[in-house]
Amino acid sequence: MAAKLGSFRYSLLEKRERTKGHSVWGFANEEGEEEQGQGQGLRCFSYRFISDKITGFLKVVQLVAGKAWQMGKSDPRKIIFSAKMGLALMLISLLIFWKQPIKELSQHSVWAILTVVVVFEFSIGATLSKGFNRGLGTLSAGGLALGMAELSQLAGQWEEVVIVISIFIIGFFSTYAKLYPTMKPYEYGLRVFVLTYCFVTVSGYKTGEFIHTAVTRFLLIALGAVVCLVVNIFFYPIWAGEDLHNLVAKNFMSVANSLEGCVKGYLNCVEYERVPSRILTYQASDDPVYSGYRSAVESTSQEEALLGFAIWEPPHGPYRSLGYPWKNYAKVSGALRHCAFMVMAMHGCILSEIQAPPERRQVFHHEIKRLGAEGARVLRELGNKVKKMEKLGPVDILFQVHDAAEELQNKIDRKSYLLVNAESWEIGNRPHSLAEPQNLLNLDSEEHKVLGSKSLSEAVLCLRTVTIPNSWDGLKNNVGANPTVPPRAPFGDLLKKQISWPVRTSLTTDAVPLLEESKTFENASALSLATFTSLLIEFIARLQNVVDSFEELSEKANFKEPDELPAAAREPIGLWSRLFRYLKF
Amino acid sequence: MAAKLGSFRYSLLEKRERTKGHSVWGFANEEGEEEQGQGQGLRCFSYRFISDKITGFLKVVQLVAGKAWQMGKSDPRKIIFSAKMGLALMLISLLIFWKQPIKELSQHSVWAILTVVVVFEFSIGATLSKGFNRGLGTLSAGGLALGMAELSQLAGQWEEVVIVISIFIIGFFSTYAKLYPTMKPYEYGLRVFVLTYCFVTVSGYKTGEFIHTAVTRFLLIALGAVVCLVVNIFFYPIWAGEDLHNLVAKNFMSVANSLEGCVKGYLNCVEYERVPSRILTYQASDDPVYSGYRSAVESTSQEEALLGFAIWEPPHGPYRSLGYPWKNYAKVSGALRHCAFMVMAMHGCILSEIQAPPERRQVFHHEIKRLGAEGARVLRELGNKVKKMEKLGPVDILFQVHDAAEELQNKIDRKSYLLVNAESWEIGNRPHSLAEPQNLLNLDSEEHKVLGSKSLSEAVLCLRTVTIPNSWDGLKNNVGANPTVPPRAPFGDLLKKQISWPVRTSLTTDAVPLLEESKTFENASALSLATFTSLLIEFIARLQNVVDSFEELSEKANFKEPDELPAAAREPIGLWSRLFRYLKF
Repeated sequence: MAAKLGSFRYSLLEKRERTKGHSVWGFANEEGEEEQGQGQGLRCFSYRFISDKITGFLKVVQLVAGKAWQMGKSDPRKIIFSAKMGLALMLISLLIFWKQPIKELSQHSVWAILTVVVVFEFSIGATLSKGFNRGLGTLSAGGLALGMAELSQLAGQWEEVVIVISIFIIGFFSTYAKLYPTMKPYEYGLRVFVLTYCFVTVSGYKTGEFIHTAVTRFLLIALGAVVCLVVNIFFYPIWAGEDLHNLVAKNFMSVANSLEGCVKGYLNCVEYERVPSRILTYQASDDPVYSGYRSAVESTSQEEALLGFAIWEPPHGPYRSLGYPWKNYAKVSGALRHCAFMVMAMHGCILSEIQAPPERRQVFHHEIKRLGAEGARVLRELGNKVKKMEKLGPVDILFQVHDAAEELQNKIDRKSYLLVNAESWEIGNRPHSLAEPQNLLNLDSEEHKVLGSKSLSEAVLCLRTVTIPNSWDGLKNNVGANPTVPPRAPFGDLLKKQISWPVRTSLTTDAVPLLEESKTFENASALSLATFTSLLIEFIARLQNVVDSFEELSEKANFKEPDELPAAAREPIGLWSRLFRYLKF
Repeated sequence: MAAKLGSFRYSLLEKRERTKGHSVWGFANEEGEEEQGQGQGLRCFSYRFISDKITGFLKVVQLVAGKAWQMGKSDPRKIIFSAKMGLALMLISLLIFWKQPIKELSQHSVWAILTVVVVFEFSIGATLSKGFNRGLGTLSAGGLALGMAELSQLAGQWEEVVIVISIFIIGFFSTYAKLYPTMKPYEYGLRVFVLTYCFVTVSGYKTGEFIHTAVTRFLLIALGAVVCLVVNIFFYPIWAGEDLHNLVAKNFMSVANSLEGCVKGYLNCVEYERVPSRILTYQASDDPVYSGYRSAVESTSQEEALLGFAIWEPPHGPYRSLGYPWKNYAKVSGALRHCAFMVMAMHGCILSEIQAPPERRQVFHHEIKRLGAEGARVLRELGNKVKKMEKLGPVDILFQVHDAAEELQNKIDRKSYLLVNAESWEIGNRPHSLAEPQNLLNLDSEEHKVLGSKSLSEAVLCLRTVTIPNSWDGLKNNVGANPTVPPRAPFGDLLKKQISWPVRTSLTTDAVPLLEESKTFENASALSLATFTSLLIEFIARLQNVVDSFEELSEKANFKEPDELPAAAREPIGLWSRLFRYLKF
């Protein structure tokens, strides 16, 4: 079952051997870097670590304090929000101090403080949502508890039993409802509902003042909520909608950067000596190409949360219309994500063990580069339009990129023989009779003058060829099995140097199976280039969705017309100003 | 700027026209199905809907109640958990009833209820984590408040000022710390910290009994926590670790199903008449292939949450060892996700507008099908091993799948001319001189007897060719521009029927550019098959990572040895039992 030379198994096993020392899976340095990042927060909280952590808590605080400055610098809103929280707490305690004469109220002051602590959220949408949940939960539970109190008094001596059973029933149904997926936004409200019901019932039963308990509690909660809202809305408001807006715009930039990095890396034949295990297990990594698309892909849950808050926010700032189409922002981002998956697959071509030979990539260098650049430009332009809330101009934003895609496809059409290895075709090799000497290279020589020598020098290094067995020379005459293909042209020789494996023959010498299998890898290499270009073109095709969803957003959200005049309208102005200039001189 | 026939622009615009009536982007039916699902929970909570929703609340409750039965049926643990919650609340209210003589305690009964409502979580890990947070927050804040009380008394007449300022400072720093990413698991603890500090300081100031307030509060919280833990652990415990374990195993099955569905769909030339806009914007959809890999990809956050809770859980059930490697479950799932992205890209080939012609797919039918089936088998086997907590046997689980990959790759080597269109090669066409008649088809005729006729009948329908212009016949003699390629063989004719576009010539008739561009799409189609196979092979290559990470997990978690004896060891037993049987008769 030993892996045969050049086969998939062989190459994969070989890779495994190579990376063993490096501990791809973190066996060796598991306690080292793997501990960093998100793992830290999780692992350090495990059961057995409790005692260690209580003593180490101050250390953690020290560490966090050290990084706190940087966090504040990168997002000053966090400092402002913290100050606002402090302010709200200060205000509520002041109110309680002042209210001291009314003993009844101040006894229940905890409700006001609790409300502030729980309801005061980063964005206004979140605060409103939680406040509404709390209000609704308290009101309905209070009402229900009062009704239940009346009912339980009818039960006479069974009063306690009725109360306890009602608590069980309320607890059961609220909790069950909470677990239903679409009830998630109501989750906090249901918690409050249960809490209020239990509290009002229990303390009302003891004091006999159901209404009093309920009303006092509600008043204090209202007080807390009012303080929250006033502080949160009137001091430097932080809007979830704005965050969502910026996040979507940022995603465009991340994917654009990733795409550019990916195309650049591919053309420069960047190879990972060992792929970081964080990428292989789809964890956060600081690889720029990877983190670009990953952040766009992973922002789903963040977007959903922001969307959930944004639709709570009243019209404000640039989001003036009632019923602002926040959902469409998420939709645009989703369409972008659909594109990002293609960038991810393209990155897969770089991560892959199977790599296209560099000199073949060079042939398509110009077209791939242009297409990548155009794609990134479209993404950036759309991202900017989202950010500036501008409609698309009359000029088709995709015209250039489609043109570039066609250029690449045409080139592929003409040179698709570079994407496959003809040597093992059962229908025979292709003839070089029509190809003029150096035809392949000359066609692109204006751009890649260096290519000829590059192919000769780097080909051997980059082709990942297995060691050529000694019987190579002996077999070589089999290459000419196709009598119509005399390798007479210099180009033929050049190509042979790169990819000349003998054709499939029925010879039963020992060397033949070896060579046969080594081709497997070889040919997969060439196809890898086809895959990359196909993925790139599919990425471009998916851009149409992004543009469509952006157009829908810009219509619904009433984006402003673009500042700059469209190219068609610009022409006469250009003429006019030229005339003006002409008259001036 | 009009799109030219057959060009990318043309085909994309055409697609747009076609789908306009169908409202790909949900313009028309936006208020319809788009409202369903996750959107519902979000949208119906927006600002302007509040009033509607309060009246409509009962309706929602009715709807949810209708679906509640199904939820309970699919996961009975949810019913059990709800009952446990009700039980815990009942117990705590009973305790408060009994404690009535001690007025002091029952006055603060709210703390016990609050603790139960807040700390009682679905899984034991979550309950422990929240309980610990609550305990730590309360203790440290209580201690700090007591210290602060002593300090503020020193301030004499400035006592109130010192207290209020301290509240601001505590509120500020706790909130700021809460915003730091790695502090997320402590978030609840920090909230409790602020709450307790404010409460103890404020109510202590008024009553002058700081210690009394703090101790009472702590005792009641402890009481609530004890009730929570007892009910949660001793009545049908629900473990987050088990959920994580099952989730990872389930992900394997989802990806396996997705892969199978994808390969099957591709070979059966399934086409989406219009791609659901939910897929184009990466929202949840009920497409089985899509939802399979999407659920695996989207489970990241769920896994993270479960991991965060699982490491809190004491050793239990099959997870006996201390410091159980829960993190490795997430790692295995991450490696699987890395594979799932390839399935996603393969699905992209089905979603794409550019489709490989069915008869070419048929050529590789057997190999692709086998590879897909083998890949799915490996995933299922790994999933089962994860589920059953079994180590890998001595037989290489990847042997068959690598073999299948090699078979496919060899086939591709021999037939890679099917992945490209040779007609427009600048180095000339390939010769058919060596290809025996029907060579291509005969080689596979044992499997695909129907192929010959299929190619003839279906080729025209599926090739997405543009209408052949009238000048076709006039141009046809240009096909023979390569004098060494006489289309004499039947195979040559067959192939011509499928893909015969004239070679690139310098003729300047009107028809030539049209035909030239129509090829663009044609050739991209052929390459699409290459892309699919490459992605499939890359998927297989990535399986190695999954196996590696599974092996690491099985080592660290001390999985049991496989039940069945390895193939090598089974042989003698087979012999023995045969002997035994022999002797018996």
